[in-house]
Amino acid sequence: MSTTVQNQIDALGLAARQASRHIARASAAQKRQTLGTLARLLREEEAVLLSANQRDLERAQASGVSGPLFDRLKLSSAILQTCALGCEQLALMPDVIGEVTGLREQPSGIRVGQMRVPIGVFGMIYESRPNVTIEAASLSIKSGNACILRGGSEAIESNKALATLVQKALVLNGLPQTAVQLIQTTEREAVGVLIRSPQWVDVIIPRGGKGLIARISEEARVPVIKHLDGNCHTYVDDALESEMYLKVIENAKTQKYSPCNALESLLVNASVAGPWLPKIAARLWAHGVELRVCDEAWAHLSTLPHDGALLKRATEQDWFEEYLAPILSVKVVADVSEAIEHINHYSSHHTDAILTQNHTHAQRFLREVDSASVMVNTSTRFADGFEFGLGAEIGISTDKFHARGPVGVEGLTSLKYIVLGQGELRG
Amino acid sequence: MSTTVQNQIDALGLAARQASRHIARASAAQKRQTLGTLARLLREEEAVLLSANQRDLERAQASGVSGPLFDRLKLSSAILQTCALGCEQLALMPDVIGEVTGLREQPSGIRVGQMRVPIGVFGMIYESRPNVTIEAASLSIKSGNACILRGGSEAIESNKALATLVQKALVLNGLPQTAVQLIQTTEREAVGVLIRSPQWVDVIIPRGGKGLIARISEEARVPVIKHLDGNCHTYVDDALESEMYLKVIENAKTQKYSPCNALESLLVNASVAGPWLPKIAARLWAHGVELRVCDEAWAHLSTLPHDGALLKRATEQDWFEEYLAPILSVKVVADVSEAIEHINHYSSHHTDAILTQNHTHAQRFLREVDSASVMVNTSTRFADGFEFGLGAEIGISTDKFHARGPVGVEGLTSLKYIVLGQGELRG
Repeated sequence: MSTTVQNQIDALGLAARQASRHIARASAAQKRQTLGTLARLLREEEAVLLSANQRDLERAQASGVSGPLFDRLKLSSAILQTCALGCEQLALMPDVIGEVTGLREQPSGIRVGQMRVPIGVFGMIYESRPNVTIEAASLSIKSGNACILRGGSEAIESNKALATLVQKALVLNGLPQTAVQLIQTTEREAVGVLIRSPQWVDVIIPRGGKGLIARISEEARVPVIKHLDGNCHTYVDDALESEMYLKVIENAKTQKYSPCNALESLLVNASVAGPWLPKIAARLWAHGVELRVCDEAWAHLSTLPHDGALLKRATEQDWFEEYLAPILSVKVVADVSEAIEHINHYSSHHTDAILTQNHTHAQRFLREVDSASVMVNTSTRFADGFEFGLGAEIGISTDKFHARGPVGVEGLTSLKYIVLGQGELRG
Repeated sequence: MSTTVQNQIDALGLAARQASRHIARASAAQKRQTLGTLARLLREEEAVLLSANQRDLERAQASGVSGPLFDRLKLSSAILQTCALGCEQLALMPDVIGEVTGLREQPSGIRVGQMRVPIGVFGMIYESRPNVTIEAASLSIKSGNACILRGGSEAIESNKALATLVQKALVLNGLPQTAVQLIQTTEREAVGVLIRSPQWVDVIIPRGGKGLIARISEEARVPVIKHLDGNCHTYVDDALESEMYLKVIENAKTQKYSPCNALESLLVNASVAGPWLPKIAARLWAHGVELRVCDEAWAHLSTLPHDGALLKRATEQDWFEEYLAPILSVKVVADVSEAIEHINHYSSHHTDAILTQNHTHAQRFLREVDSASVMVNTSTRFADGFEFGLGAEIGISTDKFHARGPVGVEGLTSLKYIVLGQGELRG
């Protein structure tokens, strides 16, 4: 352990802890104005930001980075505009800090309720996309938390330029600049030190590949809001709204292949598999989607004219798979009970949907499927903080503890008890 | 690692996981009836329970256990009656499982809300007091969770007898008996295996000494609801309701010395220290409470006639101390700001109170003190699940993550998103 890195993290941590007390007390108006200032600065300083980003891009190019990784690193006028609009939208959301709920008088005479307060300091560890710096910083300001950000070394120039604007916005509005800090060193062990420092951070939010998240979860000594994989299911219960169901499945699978909320596994009720499977296969084959199917689905589909590369028999492993690609596993099930059982066993508990006109089946599915987002008659692609009305999203939690599903401002808060008395004594 | 212990925990864990799916679906009526049956059995089988407890007591006596440890091990007719009443009270509480909140239509047309669901399986690790078996089991049933209980080896006969009744109540009401399981082996490594098994338990709740909780937090690979120490403060802001304040402080400090919510540190505003400190000192000295005081308080108190053993100068360490004894640290502070700053620095973030008639000071204290329970004009001794109206308490969390303060049924649940659509597509 290098003492230099330890000292750097301790200095950032202490400053964050102190700033967190300050920003926790900030008024709703002060936080709203800070977000407004940040939006303005993002527009005014576009040239500075793009030029910093250019340095990252050149360095990436020189070291042979290309493809999606290179694309994700890129800032543009449009991306900065989206960041600015995001800040402005968040500014307009109601402030939940200080909200008191459930205040009720108890038999002793004391009145007991809960007050929503910031969690303190969060640490965010992320890769490539520099706009995450603004997403994390703006949620930090709105939620009254301090944060310590650690972006990827490939984006260090962009992240520094963005963090400078955030700190400027904080100071212009009377808030401590250390409320949002970027770890400037690119030394790898900085992450290891941070995630083992409960004295400085109350929760760690990693955003990146499964490897990163698994390593952080294993090594962390503070709570982690984890986002593991999204093996999302849709179960077709009947064929009463056939065309609507086809469109929903087409949207869930093909609108984008890489998001965690894209459809990965289709379950079809046996009573409708005969007429219905050929229809959905035709839709998906038109997009070049490969189907990996159970024996019963194979019987329905293999006799149809098709490209052999787009129809295969599923293996046991396929039911667990998050493809993030034009591939879909397909299984015929006896009824809603088998669908729920299959999903609770194989799903990654991210997002699962039922397509049905049967109210009882819809209610059972909603209650019994043990996933972060459970849907009726719509596309799994909607599992998203913005679509859910959270105003912003810092990640999607596949855990059940604390925050579950898309995490916005509320996921960065806790509820403390408040007690109002008039001299009551415990007997 | 003994494979026998590993196999035992794996068998319990798998059974708990399967039972958790079943009990999560149980109706409110079924859970209510199960708690009613359990209460009835606790009364009917009193002789069996007391005789099992007698075997534990004899074993404890033979191995030289005495004092508070021996007392805590003891079951009595009155304790069993309290357990039965607790089950009946919990049965009457509204069922929160399946409750849907915040269902609102989003711009896309989907309606998004949150549904409260059981967390799955919790593990409870506790020492001596066998009635915790019933408290944990009854909360498990009410919250629709399965649980795995690990009591102290000194209480194994009592715990086995109690767990047998719980399982009988479950089966009589059509619920799986494995919804509540007791680890029967007294081998120590069973705890180590359990707390590193995220596949079997979703959260661990340790109840016991600081040593036990620190060790479990360090070794666990699943979330832990921690209850560390209670260094509780009361700050006297004015002297406008002098007699009421004296009674509240007397109650908070002397009603019982050992609970975690007992008062450990008193802060007094400098403007009222002169007239007021002698009054509270006289009250507390009458109970034999030793005061460890700052220099300014010393100036006010040392000239009074007193027993020298009951007045000492405080050291820096005293401000951190949880005495659990007739000792109180006392400090004079300049104003409410210094009181809040002191508390946020030295408190264990358990429970802190202000005594004031000033509305603005009360509001600031409630908002800015970063503790699980923050109180105005009442005794810190009220920080308790029953007093807060939770119906039951499985522990008090000094963490900010997930559950904070007294943990009842809601602390054992999570909120999943539900989405109701009519064929909406993501654009």
